[in-house]
Amino acid sequence: MIDKLSLNHHISQQFNAELEEVRSHLLAMGGLVEKQVNDAVSALIEADSGLAQQVRDLDDEINQMERNIDEECLRILARRQPAASDLRLIISISKSVIDLERIGDESTKIARRAIQLCEEGEAPRGYVEVRHIGDQVLKMVRDALDAFARFDADLALSVAQYDKTIDREYKTALRELVTYMMEDPRSISRVLNVIWALRSLERIGDHARNISELVIYLVQGTDVRHLGLERMKEEVRRNTERANVSPHADDK
Amino acid sequence: MIDKLSLNHHISQQFNAELEEVRSHLLAMGGLVEKQVNDAVSALIEADSGLAQQVRDLDDEINQMERNIDEECLRILARRQPAASDLRLIISISKSVIDLERIGDESTKIARRAIQLCEEGEAPRGYVEVRHIGDQVLKMVRDALDAFARFDADLALSVAQYDKTIDREYKTALRELVTYMMEDPRSISRVLNVIWALRSLERIGDHARNISELVIYLVQGTDVRHLGLERMKEEVRRNTERANVSPHADDK
Repeated sequence: MIDKLSLNHHISQQFNAELEEVRSHLLAMGGLVEKQVNDAVSALIEADSGLAQQVRDLDDEINQMERNIDEECLRILARRQPAASDLRLIISISKSVIDLERIGDESTKIARRAIQLCEEGEAPRGYVEVRHIGDQVLKMVRDALDAFARFDADLALSVAQYDKTIDREYKTALRELVTYMMEDPRSISRVLNVIWALRSLERIGDHARNISELVIYLVQGTDVRHLGLERMKEEVRRNTERANVSPHADDK
Repeated sequence: MIDKLSLNHHISQQFNAELEEVRSHLLAMGGLVEKQVNDAVSALIEADSGLAQQVRDLDDEINQMERNIDEECLRILARRQPAASDLRLIISISKSVIDLERIGDESTKIARRAIQLCEEGEAPRGYVEVRHIGDQVLKMVRDALDAFARFDADLALSVAQYDKTIDREYKTALRELVTYMMEDPRSISRVLNVIWALRSLERIGDHARNISELVIYLVQGTDVRHLGLERMKEEVRRNTERANVSPHADDK
C-alpha cells in the first residue's frame, strides 16, 4: 500500500526521502499528542498536579512540531510540485497537523482542569466517565494514527463510526452530572471542571474523526467529510471494490 | 497591495482569474458564516426557534462551500504549481476555510441551544453577556475577513489582540453564571444552555484569531502562531518596516 501510494514512481530518491520524512514527523507528533491525552486523563483521575503540569509544559513542543511540519509541507509544495497521491499526502499531512495540535490544546485544557480540581478538592462524581470516555477517545486517536501509518481506509472508517458512540456516552454522562449538581449545588464548581474535561475529550474524538477522514481521502482520493456515516461507509466500500478490480484506479 | 501580492506577475491571465475566484469564494463563504453567527445569537436572545432552525439548515451549504473551495485549491496546486505569494494565498485559503467551517459549526451549536431554551423556557440570566460577547466576536469575524480581503496585516493583528479581551469577559461571565446556579439550582439546566452558547462564542473568537494569523502569514510571509501577543506585535511591526524600505522584501 505504501508503495502504491507514494513511493514507487519518483525518479528522485531525494523526493521519496522527503515525503517519508514529513510523514514520519507527523506520526512522531501523533505519538506525543497521544501521550498528552493519556497523561492529561491520568492527571485528572489521580489528582496528580505534577503530571498535569508536565502536560502543559509539553504544549510548546507540540506547537513547534506543527510549525516544522507545516514548513516541510510548504517546501515540498514549492520545490517538488507534487501531483496525484503525493499531493494528497501533503494535503492530508498539513491538515492532520492542525487536528493534532488541537488535540494537544484540549489535553492542556484537561490538565488545567486537573490542576483546578487539585486546588478546589475532588469532584464528587464523574471520574468513572472520564476514565471510560478517555480510554475510548485515546483508542480513537491511536487508531486514526495507525490508519495514517498503514494507509488503512477501513480502520479509518471504524474510527469515524466510533465517534457516534462517544457523542452518545458524553451526552449521557452530562445528563447525570447535571442531575447531580441540582441535588448538591455546592459541588457545581467542581463538577463543572469534570464536565469541561469530558467536553474536551469529546472534542478530541471529533479531531480523531477528522484525521481518519483525511486518511480516507489520502488512500482513496474521496472527500468523505460531512457525508454522514451511512454514505461514508458506502463510499469507502465502493472505492475498495474498485481498487480491487483495478489496482491503480484510485491514483488519478 | 492586491497587485503586489498576487496579481502582477503571471503570464497567464487565466491563472490570475483562478486565484481571484477562489479568493472571492472564500470571502463569500465568510459572509455567509458571519450571517450565521449573527442569526444564531439573535435566535438565542429573542427565543426565535424559527431563526435557529434556519441557521441549522444552512450548515449543509457551508459544508458544501468548504468542499468546493478545497477542490479549487487542490486543482490550482496540481495544475499551476504556485510559488511564493501565490502558494501562500492558496495555503491561507485552504486553512481559513477550516476555521470558517468550524465557526459555522459553532453557530449551529448556538442555534441548537436556542431551540432548547425555547423548549425548556428562558434562562434567568446570561442574555446580556451573550449579546455583548456575541457582538464583539462578530466584529472579530468581520474584521478577520476584511483583513483577508484587503491584505491588511495591521487589522489582522488587532483581531488577534482582541481575542484576549473575549477570553477575559467569557471567564467573568462564567463565574457569575456559576454563582447564580448555586443560588438557584433549579435553573442549572437552562443556565448551562447559555454557558454552552458563550463557550461557542469564545471558540468563534479563537477561529477568527486563527484566520487573522493566516492573513499575517499571507501578507508578510511570517508564521506568527503560538508566538504570544507581544512577539506577534513585534514581528508584524518589523515586517512592516522592512516592507516600507523595500516594497518586495516579503515576496521571496
